[in-house]
Amino acid sequence: MNDLNQQLTFILEIDRLKAIYRQTFVISDDNRNENSAEHSWHISMMAHILHQYAEETVDISRVVKMLLIHDIVEIDAGDTFAFADQADHESQEVVELEAANRLFGLLPDEQFYMMKNLWLEFELANTADAKFAKAMDRMLPLLQNIQNNGGSWVKHNISKTQVLNRNSYLEQTCPQLWNYACEQIDVAVSEGWLTDD
Amino acid sequence: MNDLNQQLTFILEIDRLKAIYRQTFVISDDNRNENSAEHSWHISMMAHILHQYAEETVDISRVVKMLLIHDIVEIDAGDTFAFADQADHESQEVVELEAANRLFGLLPDEQFYMMKNLWLEFELANTADAKFAKAMDRMLPLLQNIQNNGGSWVKHNISKTQVLNRNSYLEQTCPQLWNYACEQIDVAVSEGWLTDD
Repeated sequence: MNDLNQQLTFILEIDRLKAIYRQTFVISDDNRNENSAEHSWHISMMAHILHQYAEETVDISRVVKMLLIHDIVEIDAGDTFAFADQADHESQEVVELEAANRLFGLLPDEQFYMMKNLWLEFELANTADAKFAKAMDRMLPLLQNIQNNGGSWVKHNISKTQVLNRNSYLEQTCPQLWNYACEQIDVAVSEGWLTDD
Repeated sequence: MNDLNQQLTFILEIDRLKAIYRQTFVISDDNRNENSAEHSWHISMMAHILHQYAEETVDISRVVKMLLIHDIVEIDAGDTFAFADQADHESQEVVELEAANRLFGLLPDEQFYMMKNLWLEFELANTADAKFAKAMDRMLPLLQNIQNNGGSWVKHNISKTQVLNRNSYLEQTCPQLWNYACEQIDVAVSEGWLTDD
């Protein structure tokens, strides 16, 4: 296969991300579950809008690229709920690495390595770009759940501590957003959308 | 409202793009209609993968930003079918401009002007970045319809000439992709997915 055929195969294969459903809900669309493709669009937009709050300077075009691809592995590996057990997260890592190799492996070599490395950078979250990208990925479901009277938190009986831990990336990465998130978490507890442990 | 509150209002408002449905179908998800949020993700990915084929050099990070925002006006203005009458397209322009002012107007001034200007650049399609972005927006439904045995072309009885005209942006912008599209259009005619006028 020439490069173009490989690239078009990849482009059509990732259409399947539109069929991977998450635990968050789309209020504006009869509260159906959100899929990972539209979620990836939404956090890419969010990163563009909020990158001024990143404590360390980030390369927003790299961050957006990272966010566009960060869930593609779910096509093979499925979505893991944010508040799943640690053991589930660990077994998921192996499955996701295989998924990255198969899916990004549909591309010509140069793009395969670029995409896989960018995805690994996001997963490891050691760079400023990846930390900010992770912070966005954690904060958006919080905003969505607050807007939706607790949304998936209520459905799964999630606690304040779980949400604080999940969003702690924000504390170092975007202090102003962390302050906002903490205020909102307090609102959620007072409304009964999060259990107060 | 301070900047952050304005920005978060915008981020939550654009959630509604997930409820704007297009004429194309998502094969992998029971052939339901595609929404404009997941479509925006998909062409942003496509632009990243294919920008090497642009005849003029493009700034891929600007192109992606343009593609992420290009359909946001549909939240107020709705989606216009690609093959709607010219009169429908023209009346839509006014409605979309109002939509751009209201939606991007939720943002702080600097971001409002940046987003609105980028959206206008896409609509006018006079720059290399915008032409390439338009070319992507035209080519992806073609790939989807081909993969889906004619998809929305069959449903709406679309002709070869209509699709050639719609994709003619590709001819100057990405000649290699144009050649590929022409071959695929011939396949579609021979399969009976497009009428041969």
